[in-house]
This record gives sequence, C-alpha cells and structure tokens, in this order.
Amino acid sequence: MMKTANLLLILFGTLVFAGCFNQELQETIQTDPLPSWNEGNTKQAIIDYVIDVTNEESENFISVSERIATFDNDGNLWSEQPLYFQFIFAIDRIKSLASGHPEWKNQQPYKAVLEDDQGELLKQGMHGLLELVMASHADMTTAEFEAVVKDWLATARHPRFDRPFTDLVYQPMLELLQYLRDNDFKTFIVSGGGIEFMRPWVEKVYGIPTDQVVGSTIKTVFDYNNGNPVIKRLPEMDFIDDKEGKPVGIHKYIGKKPVFASGNSDGDLQMMQWTASNKYKSFILYLHHTDADREWAYDRESHIGRLDKGLDEAKENDWSIIDMAKDWKLIYPHELTK
Amino acid sequence: MMKTANLLLILFGTLVFAGCFNQELQETIQTDPLPSWNEGNTKQAIIDYVIDVTNEESENFISVSERIATFDNDGNLWSEQPLYFQFIFAIDRIKSLASGHPEWKNQQPYKAVLEDDQGELLKQGMHGLLELVMASHADMTTAEFEAVVKDWLATARHPRFDRPFTDLVYQPMLELLQYLRDNDFKTFIVSGGGIEFMRPWVEKVYGIPTDQVVGSTIKTVFDYNNGNPVIKRLPEMDFIDDKEGKPVGIHKYIGKKPVFASGNSDGDLQMMQWTASNKYKSFILYLHHTDADREWAYDRESHIGRLDKGLDEAKENDWSIIDMAKDWKLIYPHELTK
Repeated sequence: MMKTANLLLILFGTLVFAGCFNQELQETIQTDPLPSWNEGNTKQAIIDYVIDVTNEESENFISVSERIATFDNDGNLWSEQPLYFQFIFAIDRIKSLASGHPEWKNQQPYKAVLEDDQGELLKQGMHGLLELVMASHADMTTAEFEAVVKDWLATARHPRFDRPFTDLVYQPMLELLQYLRDNDFKTFIVSGGGIEFMRPWVEKVYGIPTDQVVGSTIKTVFDYNNGNPVIKRLPEMDFIDDKEGKPVGIHKYIGKKPVFASGNSDGDLQMMQWTASNKYKSFILYLHHTDADREWAYDRESHIGRLDKGLDEAKENDWSIIDMAKDWKLIYPHELTK
Repeated sequence: MMKTANLLLILFGTLVFAGCFNQELQETIQTDPLPSWNEGNTKQAIIDYVIDVTNEESENFISVSERIATFDNDGNLWSEQPLYFQFIFAIDRIKSLASGHPEWKNQQPYKAVLEDDQGELLKQGMHGLLELVMASHADMTTAEFEAVVKDWLATARHPRFDRPFTDLVYQPMLELLQYLRDNDFKTFIVSGGGIEFMRPWVEKVYGIPTDQVVGSTIKTVFDYNNGNPVIKRLPEMDFIDDKEGKPVGIHKYIGKKPVFASGNSDGDLQMMQWTASNKYKSFILYLHHTDADREWAYDRESHIGRLDKGLDEAKENDWSIIDMAKDWKLIYPHELTK
C-alpha cells in the first residue's frame, strides 16, 4: 500500500513538474516572441497590438480571415544597399550574357554596365534601367528564369559582407513574421521588386508561400509547345508594384485591406495610407535605417529606399518607427551563431 | 460498494459507447469523404489519387507546399445556365442604371438589354459584351462595387430555380474542395469571371479566401482622396483569365504549377494542359454536364461553357470525366434538406 502511494506521489510530482516546465517554456515564448528586439516602445507597441486584436473580448478584435499583414521586401525584410539586390542580379546577368552581344560594348546602357561606370549608368534614367531589366529578365521561359535566379543566389556574394544575398535578411523581421503567423495573421510580401525574382527563395527564407507574394510583373504568354507547355517572359512591363501601385497590387492579389503594414521607404507610403484607412484597428510600421555600423544609415537623401515624406507622415500619425540601431539587438541571422 | 461498482460500470459503459460512436462517425468520414458522389470510377480515382500523393511512403508523394489545386468557377463550382451569372448581374445592373442614361434606349448594346432582345444582344459580339461589362462594372470604387455585388446576390433570383444564385453551387464540389483541404491541398479558383465579382461571396460559400481567387480584372487606380483613400475601377480591361490566359493567371497569382485542376469547358483546356505537365503526379478533372433534369445537359454545341476539344483531349489522355447524371447523387446543397 505504501509502495502504491509512493508511486502515485512520484507520478503526481512528475506531472506537476512537467506542467510547470511547459508553462515556463510557454511563458518565455509568450513574454518574448521577438527575442532579437530590444525592449522599448516599438517592440511593446507591436505586442500590445497583437494581443489586443486577437483577444475576442476586445472591442478591437479582428477575425482570422481579416488578419492580413503586408511587408515590403527591399530594405525591409533584407538589405537593399549599395543597390537593390535585383539590380545587382541584372548587372551580373548582363555581364554573363555580354559575350553573345558584342554590340553591347558600344551601346548604352550596356556599355556603362560592362565598364562598371556607375555615373553613366545613373544618367541612363528609368528608360535605361527598364532596358537592362528586360534584357536580363525576359526572352526566356519562366522555368528558365527561375533557374537563373537560383543559380545567381547560390553563387553571388554581397560586396560588403561577402555572403550570399539571402544571408542578408533581417533576423528581427523573421521573428516578427513568425509571431504574426503564430497569431493567425496571413503574411504577404508587397514589393516593388519582381515577383519572379522573389518567388524562388521567399518560401524557404521567409516562410511565405509563392502565392503570397505581390510584386512587379512583366507580361507572359502561354505556349502549348507541342505538348510540353511553357510560359514565356516577354520584354514588356505588365505592372509596377510601387507607390500608388502598392494598394492596387494589394487589392488585385489579396482582395482585402491589410490591418498590418510594414515598409521602409516612400515607395511604401500609399500602402501605409491604405492600411491606415482600415475600419479595423491597424498597425503601421516603418523601418528607419539608422545603423551605419551594422547595416546602413540613410533616409531623406538616399537614391535607394528614400524615406522622406513617409517619415513625416509616420510622425504626424503616430505610426511606429523602428530605429534599427536602437531597437534591434542584431541584424542578420548569422550573428546568432557568433 | 455495489453502488460504486454500478456507477463505475455505467460510467465505463457510457465512455465505451461514446468512444464507439465517435469512432463510427470518424470511419464514415474516413471511408466516404465525398458522400454526395455515387460510387464509381470518378470518385474512386479522386480518392486513390489523394491517398497516393499524400502518402510519404509513395513514390508519388507530393509535399504540402506543392499541393496546389485549381478550380474553374462557372459551370464547375456553380451553374452557368441560361447565361453566366455575372452576365445576368450585368444585365440587371444596366437596367437599374438605365433611368440615369436615357440615351441607352436608342443605343446598342444597351437597347437590346433594355428590350430583353437576346437575338440582338448576341449580334453585338465581344465588343458589345465588353461595353456592357464596363458600363455595369466600372466607374466606381472597389468598395462600391463590392456593395453592388452583395446587394444583387441578396435579392436576385435564378429564373429557373427561383433561388439566390449562390444556392446553385454544387454540393459534390463543396465536398471535393473540403476533402482536398483536409489533405493539405491549397484550393484556388481560376475563373474567366471577374475577380471582384467572386470575392464578395466565395469565402463564405466555398471556404476559399479572397487571395486565392484568380480571375479576369479591369484596371484600377489608387486615389488618396484627401486622407480617405479609395481604389477606383476604370473602364478598361486589365487581364482576361480564360483559355491561354488561365496558365498565365495561375503563374502570375500562384507562382506554382497546379497538381490538381478541375474545369468544365474548353476555356479550361490550357489550365489542364499546364497542370498535366507537372513533374509531380497530377489529376485532371472535367465536369461533363449530362443532367438536363436536375441541372443542364450541354457540351460541344453550347454557347455557354462549350466542352468540345476538352472532351476529346480528356478521353485521349485518360483524364477523369464527371458524368453529372451518373456520378452525383445530388446537385445543390438545398437537396440535402429535402
């Protein structure tokens, strides 16, 4: 009889212990779902918002199907300096195609690319840029383009950090994406970059499926190709998902107004305005690049990712602003294993 | 002591009974996930496919992120006779707007609509149809259009069945959508119909979220509107998601080749070809309207939802064909409660 009682006591003790342990673990996760974020107003505002709108008792409760969160990509989920990474990809691609195009040596904007003449390249303007994008991104099938992007990501290195470009995603933003998904938000990318440049890697890197990526597109066409169907990429823009294009892209692809929007530049401002007009309580988050040591510091005067009007409007409207230097314990995932 | 024993026996018996009952229920669902489908080749082929590709031990296993299933809407998830329901909506809308447009009385294609002159209407061709679509679908904000669609669905009745149009969805297809989702397929609509005509109701009716709807679109533009931002619908086509457009739309919105495709007309054929070219084992399902009594019977000669080439290609390639009269126990959900 004593033996049975002892056994029960041990069993009971084990259960209580296991219960406590689980509870402790759970509390750690609950109290810090964003471990790479320093304590402060920004982190607290995010957590307060999520707790509020997921609480069925709250007047601000948002049902699961309306929990749409949209994230800009360049400079918001990964770095964008010294040039948008997709632009570095385009330059590398032009160089690798140059042997088949001897005429490019004497023809702008190709000449500037092949001679690494940044000054001349900037002079080529939007028209020159578009020509480079088409020459490097079109006239092949979608499957071929996907392979080209994957090859580039597997071999190209960032000039400053000497790492693959996909290493330069922001660890705090990975945690934020996961935290939102853990709270039944559906997370989308809404980027000025090309959809097909992002899709080959965002699923693995951000946990965002290909159909939750909104971005710029070029026109494509189906070809039955004698029973081996392909989709061909044409050298013609279809849609530019930037500035006023962002709410249009959000409406076109998602069909709902976001309740949570995150971006870093004036190119995101209309997405922020659209989100802020939601009848549900919304959360607007601007990332301010303030960390020249660990990443880059730039805002109003930058050619890439300029944040000027957006900064003013964020301050006027009390939107949350991430001060990268102050709010983030670390920037990139590889710093975790240092 | 006997009383306690009896009580325990009763409790035990209740638990066993409850257990059996649940198990029985579960077995019914497990052995028949498609209760409105008659036993036969089509139903069995669907179930065999799903069991095969979700089995990790199978050489045909497909990982969850690749389980993309695309469904045409008109004539495939709901009826499409005597006219595409969206076209009936357009006609109703033209009539309700007519008092503000006295000139329409003498101007085609409006005159034909206002006079219910179907012969004249058909003569107006694609150009006339597009003009009617623009007049009834554009020149308002997206929020206004959503309200118009919801109002129409709440009041309009189908001429043959005298029921709201959303009652005319196919119960067997609702079960198929759910069965696929229960097996971690992501279900999408890929329709020639307008995205914004479908989005207001597909979530509730099909359980498909708005961002999983691919369809035809008209151009839209963002307007900040002094801090009350709106998106305006312009009278200009953006994309027609039909025939060759379907694989293009799938690639644009989903970014992955489907493994499962379901449709009912030649407008779906290119989606079928694209799906059949998947490196993973795919399943192609054509719905053949063979049931004039309970729904409609039409195929090669029909003006709406013609199935001609698709029927030949389905037979050549051993794709599955639903014989509506034979394969479906019932058509519409309201028959369940008869």
